Amino acid sequence: MEQAAFDKKYIALRREFHRYPEPAWLEYRTTARIIQHLEELGLRPRWGRDIHQAEARMGLPGADTDAAWLARAVEETGRGDLIQRMAGGFTGVVVEIDGALPGPSMGVRVDIDSNDLTESEDLSHRPAREGFASCHPGAMHACGHDGHIAIGLGLAELLAGSRDRLRGKVTLFFQAAEEGGRGAQSLVARGLLDHIRWFWSGHIGINDAPVGTVSASTYGFLSGTKFDVTFLGRASHAGKAPEEGHNALAAASNAVLNLLAIPRSGKGVSRVNVGMMEGGSGRNVIPDYARICAEARGGNQEVSDYMLESALRVCRAAADMYQCRMEQEIRGRSMTVACDPELAEFAARRARELPGIREVVAASDMGAGENVTFMMDRVQKRGGKATFLLLGGSITAPHHSRAFDFDEAVIPLAARLFAGIALGLGETEREDKG
Amino acid sequence: MEQAAFDKKYIALRREFHRYPEPAWLEYRTTARIIQHLEELGLRPRWGRDIHQAEARMGLPGADTDAAWLARAVEETGRGDLIQRMAGGFTGVVVEIDGALPGPSMGVRVDIDSNDLTESEDLSHRPAREGFASCHPGAMHACGHDGHIAIGLGLAELLAGSRDRLRGKVTLFFQAAEEGGRGAQSLVARGLLDHIRWFWSGHIGINDAPVGTVSASTYGFLSGTKFDVTFLGRASHAGKAPEEGHNALAAASNAVLNLLAIPRSGKGVSRVNVGMMEGGSGRNVIPDYARICAEARGGNQEVSDYMLESALRVCRAAADMYQCRMEQEIRGRSMTVACDPELAEFAARRARELPGIREVVAASDMGAGENVTFMMDRVQKRGGKATFLLLGGSITAPHHSRAFDFDEAVIPLAARLFAGIALGLGETEREDKG
Amino acid sequence: MEQAAFDKKYIALRREFHRYPEPAWLEYRTTARIIQHLEELGLRPRWGRDIHQAEARMGLPGADTDAAWLARAVEETGRGDLIQRMAGGFTGVVVEIDGALPGPSMGVRVDIDSNDLTESEDLSHRPAREGFASCHPGAMHACGHDGHIAIGLGLAELLAGSRDRLRGKVTLFFQAAEEGGRGAQSLVARGLLDHIRWFWSGHIGINDAPVGTVSASTYGFLSGTKFDVTFLGRASHAGKAPEEGHNALAAASNAVLNLLAIPRSGKGVSRVNVGMMEGGSGRNVIPDYARICAEARGGNQEVSDYMLESALRVCRAAADMYQCRMEQEIRGRSMTVACDPELAEFAARRARELPGIREVVAASDMGAGENVTFMMDRVQKRGGKATFLLLGGSITAPHHSRAFDFDEAVIPLAARLFAGIALGLGETEREDKG
Amino acid sequence: MEQAAFDKKYIALRREFHRYPEPAWLEYRTTARIIQHLEELGLRPRWGRDIHQAEARMGLPGADTDAAWLARAVEETGRGDLIQRMAGGFTGVVVEIDGALPGPSMGVRVDIDSNDLTESEDLSHRPAREGFASCHPGAMHACGHDGHIAIGLGLAELLAGSRDRLRGKVTLFFQAAEEGGRGAQSLVARGLLDHIRWFWSGHIGINDAPVGTVSASTYGFLSGTKFDVTFLGRASHAGKAPEEGHNALAAASNAVLNLLAIPRSGKGVSRVNVGMMEGGSGRNVIPDYARICAEARGGNQEVSDYMLESALRVCRAAADMYQCRMEQEIRGRSMTVACDPELAEFAARRARELPGIREVVAASDMGAGENVTFMMDRVQKRGGKATFLLLGGSITAPHHSRAFDFDEAVIPLAARLFAGIALGLGETEREDKG
Repeated sequence: MEQAAFDKKYIALRREFHRYPEPAWLEYRTTARIIQHLEELGLRPRWGRDIHQAEARMGLPGADTDAAWLARAVEETGRGDLIQRMAGGFTGVVVEIDGALPGPSMGVRVDIDSNDLTESEDLSHRPAREGFASCHPGAMHACGHDGHIAIGLGLAELLAGSRDRLRGKVTLFFQAAEEGGRGAQSLVARGLLDHIRWFWSGHIGINDAPVGTVSASTYGFLSGTKFDVTFLGRASHAGKAPEEGHNALAAASNAVLNLLAIPRSGKGVSRVNVGMMEGGSGRNVIPDYARICAEARGGNQEVSDYMLESALRVCRAAADMYQCRMEQEIRGRSMTVACDPELAEFAARRARELPGIREVVAASDMGAGENVTFMMDRVQKRGGKATFLLLGGSITAPHHSRAFDFDEAVIPLAARLFAGIALGLGETEREDKG
Repeated sequence: MEQAAFDKKYIALRREFHRYPEPAWLEYRTTARIIQHLEELGLRPRWGRDIHQAEARMGLPGADTDAAWLARAVEETGRGDLIQRMAGGFTGVVVEIDGALPGPSMGVRVDIDSNDLTESEDLSHRPAREGFASCHPGAMHACGHDGHIAIGLGLAELLAGSRDRLRGKVTLFFQAAEEGGRGAQSLVARGLLDHIRWFWSGHIGINDAPVGTVSASTYGFLSGTKFDVTFLGRASHAGKAPEEGHNALAAASNAVLNLLAIPRSGKGVSRVNVGMMEGGSGRNVIPDYARICAEARGGNQEVSDYMLESALRVCRAAADMYQCRMEQEIRGRSMTVACDPELAEFAARRARELPGIREVVAASDMGAGENVTFMMDRVQKRGGKATFLLLGGSITAPHHSRAFDFDEAVIPLAARLFAGIALGLGETEREDKG
Repeated sequence: MEQAAFDKKYIALRREFHRYPEPAWLEYRTTARIIQHLEELGLRPRWGRDIHQAEARMGLPGADTDAAWLARAVEETGRGDLIQRMAGGFTGVVVEIDGALPGPSMGVRVDIDSNDLTESEDLSHRPAREGFASCHPGAMHACGHDGHIAIGLGLAELLAGSRDRLRGKVTLFFQAAEEGGRGAQSLVARGLLDHIRWFWSGHIGINDAPVGTVSASTYGFLSGTKFDVTFLGRASHAGKAPEEGHNALAAASNAVLNLLAIPRSGKGVSRVNVGMMEGGSGRNVIPDYARICAEARGGNQEVSDYMLESALRVCRAAADMYQCRMEQEIRGRSMTVACDPELAEFAARRARELPGIREVVAASDMGAGENVTFMMDRVQKRGGKATFLLLGGSITAPHHSRAFDFDEAVIPLAARLFAGIALGLGETEREDKG
Repeated sequence: MEQAAFDKKYIALRREFHRYPEPAWLEYRTTARIIQHLEELGLRPRWGRDIHQAEARMGLPGADTDAAWLARAVEETGRGDLIQRMAGGFTGVVVEIDGALPGPSMGVRVDIDSNDLTESEDLSHRPAREGFASCHPGAMHACGHDGHIAIGLGLAELLAGSRDRLRGKVTLFFQAAEEGGRGAQSLVARGLLDHIRWFWSGHIGINDAPVGTVSASTYGFLSGTKFDVTFLGRASHAGKAPEEGHNALAAASNAVLNLLAIPRSGKGVSRVNVGMMEGGSGRNVIPDYARICAEARGGNQEVSDYMLESALRVCRAAADMYQCRMEQEIRGRSMTVACDPELAEFAARRARELPGIREVVAASDMGAGENVTFMMDRVQKRGGKATFLLLGGSITAPHHSRAFDFDEAVIPLAARLFAGIALGLGETEREDKG
């Protein structure tokens, strides 16, 4: 396929995925469409329970939500045959592309889930203006994972078409449930990373650089814990007997303020967020129930632990203050890893040779958690090398905001860059041995 | 009908209404069943748009909620013919019972809506143990309105069977949407109270007295305002750029604490409650949205105004603090009235004569708001007299709590008491004139 | 003395006391001046350790403060001879006036301490304009106790001049440390109230009525507890290691908000105030210390207990939240009593007969705590009768505010009213027996 | 002087300064003693108004405090002659040491003020155990400035004794009021830094390294602003009319929590602290006054500005919430600078040659503000070079905590290192030109 046609095809694909966002563990339509595309390329994707260790999946949605999203995906795709095999939150796809020549085992991860946001309908927002904004209420691709899917599929096509000169094998991971740090652990526990010698992944639009700028190494992955806290109090009539109530919503509100007020640490970056809260049952009833969904993070394990410990102490005291019971549940985790300079430098070299790449910048700061770190960590622990690339692409609003969009030219460029790395790595190994 | 059979019938009816609770403006099944019962008594109830001033109804639920409850009610009753006429929140019933003899125009109000609570499933809770607990998730009769409906229907039967000796006319109001102070205004605006000369109503289980104890006069109706406040901020990635967010959930949490901290007033009883809150969209997104449902009340209009004004100021400042926009909406109101001693004394006299009444106590303290005050106020403004009775009946847990239940023996007793008052009032007037 | 001269004298005296305010247990100058005046009337006042049970005095100031105020009082009066006998917080005076004729034992209490406020210097404030504003920084008579002293001294003069027709004995208590509920307990413990058969007291300027209006009976005495809470945390460098600090000031601030947010009670009036707070040691040090001075009150003992218990729980949880230690200290108490109708009605009768009294209103609402309740309670427990009068006198600003002042015409009128009661009571008893 | 005697002398001197700590702008005794020592070395120190630009001094204490500390210093030293010349907060000393040979103009800064802490009396704390703990209540050298003074005086002795081989001139700045970022600006505004070509300074005990470890370059100076906020409300009687009060203490408490909750920034280190708070006037008065002393800092100017702006917005909204007026006052500032590699490398070289230095580590993270940055900035703006050394010295507790102490062996070692740098720099320049 000519480059212009290739570029057009994968930008169009990104827009399709953008229009049908699905959050973590609910990527039924998304997974089905990825399978279809890979099969059209003559590949044999694996999915469903084959690629998961069921109990290692974290933060699954409730059964009702699951059923509703699954039903809609079946309706949208007409592919109940595919989707039934992934029912119950066994989403995501793994596919292997074997080169014609011997060589190393390589792995690439792209993530596929969306965010819990309602997309902007403002006509200044391109997806709204051009008609590919989310049609799933409350869900939106606001972190570029739609672009990541398109990069992964483009990469599959490029590698599938270069099998004759590909040395070794490339495993592509279309990973579910990156948001919240919930999906990678299951693939790792299933052993799917154990054989990978070279492993890379990347993210669009971080660091505010234009398309053509890349960084081949990343630091500053935040380590963190996602957790829910439920406050259980006692209801009473707010007019007649407010003193008989144990106000769970007051406890939760007090927790929110004091969670945000946990002291910053002199030992590294710290973060805490209460992303959601709900509570109470009726306007004139003292609330006997409130729940918060929160996360505590740190630039290193020590700070991360400090934040979590402080957060749980704050919640406990807030519950005590209002005579409430407190229940806590850990919902996801992320960790810190370091990129391997050897692989990063190789990737940077390949980038410099690629038309369209304008600048390869130094190692960049992630400043966030990334679930892929669990996969990188496993590869490294088994003796392999891993890195994470930041792929420039101007954005229109911060990640995870309702008006987020990015320069789509990054999609085909990143697919070519990843293909170049895969093709080059096998070559290099041969030379090393030669 | 014999007294024992009568008693049994109306206790059974109460249990049926208890099993199918419907909150304000969604009393579709409830209204249909009331109509059926009244028609069986040979009465000709009115309902739907005939009894409402559409725009005077406050705090209507959203269209989706309305459609869902209506559909279920149709399914539960098979009476789509009745229910379609009340679609869109035109619930409640008004019925007139004409005596054979001339006499005054009398009115009795009973309320019919349930609360937003999930009923206790504990076997120590009689409705759970005996199988008449709510089968509508999230809804529960936790304020005795199920009993009020049964009293109203029992009263209708007693009066319908005594038409020959009834002097004057009794209008029974099965009022929708008492909770939140939302339904009475519409009946008043429609002019339905304008002709009433004597008007009374009552409440079960207040003041912790056993069945047989009544108070014929009530003071301490709280005046108040129900209001919602929405905080609109700006989302951002909680890891990468928390400083770019305007945290609506933090604003709302701060509002909650400071609403509760509004200074008590030296000028009368004050109350404030945030009964519900929800906010945020995703765990690692700075929340750009939060909403609270609150109420501010006072023992008199001055304190009530002070509480509302303070509450709105607190919310405004909390929004400013977190750079959020604030939207407020008034959702319901209640007011303060005084019972007329003349009618209260008459009711007390009738009570003392009634078998089963053990004690008539002095005027009692309501300590809460009651939407019927709008009806009482209209009657009084048109020159009529009004009172509100408290009907003893041991309760198992505070009103508006998940384990609320009451001694059902109050139901037939109250029906007989109300019938006695109605029959007596006409008699009295005749004597007065005689 | 002529009435006009009498009036002028006691208004002038009030102004002198106003100019030299002294807070609880530091009324050295005040006590000395009262003694001088009583001695000039030929009376033999008692003071110092003779009238106190040392350990029953509550909420004493620190030794440094005590020494400083004592020294200044000595300087201001030149009466170190008197003052040394009251050193260490043994302030206040008791004096007995014996009638020439046999009769009952009567008691009258006036309080003498000032408030911890800096008086307004605004020229719209009469004491500032006319030069009798406080010359003691941080202290101010903002609750009318300066007027009470003048009433007490005027009463002493009137009774001393009417000994020949006074039946029985009147004990005047110039009580120290009314504010904070700290002084009466000591007089009670000393047994000074045990013999009193009729006991009364009063307060200026409550209920916003003009001079000439009085109420002879009072209800709504708030019961309450004064308490201090100290939060002890851990200091650290706020720039380098904020995470090592345990922030006592954050704990205290959180306590303040949540103390104010303690649910109002449906069982009676509730109050809570944090009147003072201090904390921290340096701007860039995480505060390891904070202290709050608070009070919790209720319209009855149950609510009062509920408020105190809730307040201490809030403080404990706030300390836990910030890993601080908490120390609590009870600093004073007040209680609830009921006035005796028999004495109240007698006082009302005498009031109606007195020129200058324009209206005797029904029992009035105190809506505050009064330390005299401990004395009233003891009298009643020993079989005597007690009441508390509210003495109309327009005020310029709320009690305990910096611009408080009152209509001084109440002073001589109240002295005459109290004298009238005392002279009348003996008379009555005689008649009763006659 | 032999090295052992020198070491002993300056450790003893440190202990003397430790015993008599004086906070910012109150270093009267300290300044006098420094002058005496310098004069004993035959030097001619300058002080008082000669070295200050009066209006550039920030955050001066109140007149009463100033007078009290001055009086005590006169008493302690018997040197009113010296001290009167620095009355009113003109503390600190500047002295020049001229070499016998031509060379560059060099400058060294040491800071001399103490912290607002009460020193630990625990016998595990060496100053307490060995009798040199602070005898000034509420003041303590908890940041090692006592050691800095001793280093500065030791350096003066070493240079004064090496004049014959010193090329150029060294100006020693014994700077007042480093804490709070208040003193350096005045020396800069006076022009005293304008001629300096090489400028350095240092800090003891940062980075937790033992004596013998030094870093010759420092990054991570926090930029920040010290500010006070006063909340002015309205007092009222907390029992009778709490609703009439505008609670300034509640406003301040709410500000404290929400200041701590200002979102962390993704753009750099952020800090905020409320170091002190006081408010209210009496226990049963709604507080009409509260004041907080705070600081907001950032790792760069953008974050620093963001923190200050957010902080003032929080305070304004907290004031609005409680109907208070807010007054703000800027009390001090610090800024960010970069050390010059050229000078840092020279200092590192000299360090490596010095007996007793065990390790020269890479550029270290300050993680705090330093007032000397204003002096460094001026030197750099005039074309000179500046650096800041971190001087290892084990500490017993964090800086600014009550049990802070450090390994005194750092004192003579640092004096020798600084002397070595000064003697070497002149030499180098000569070689450069040669």
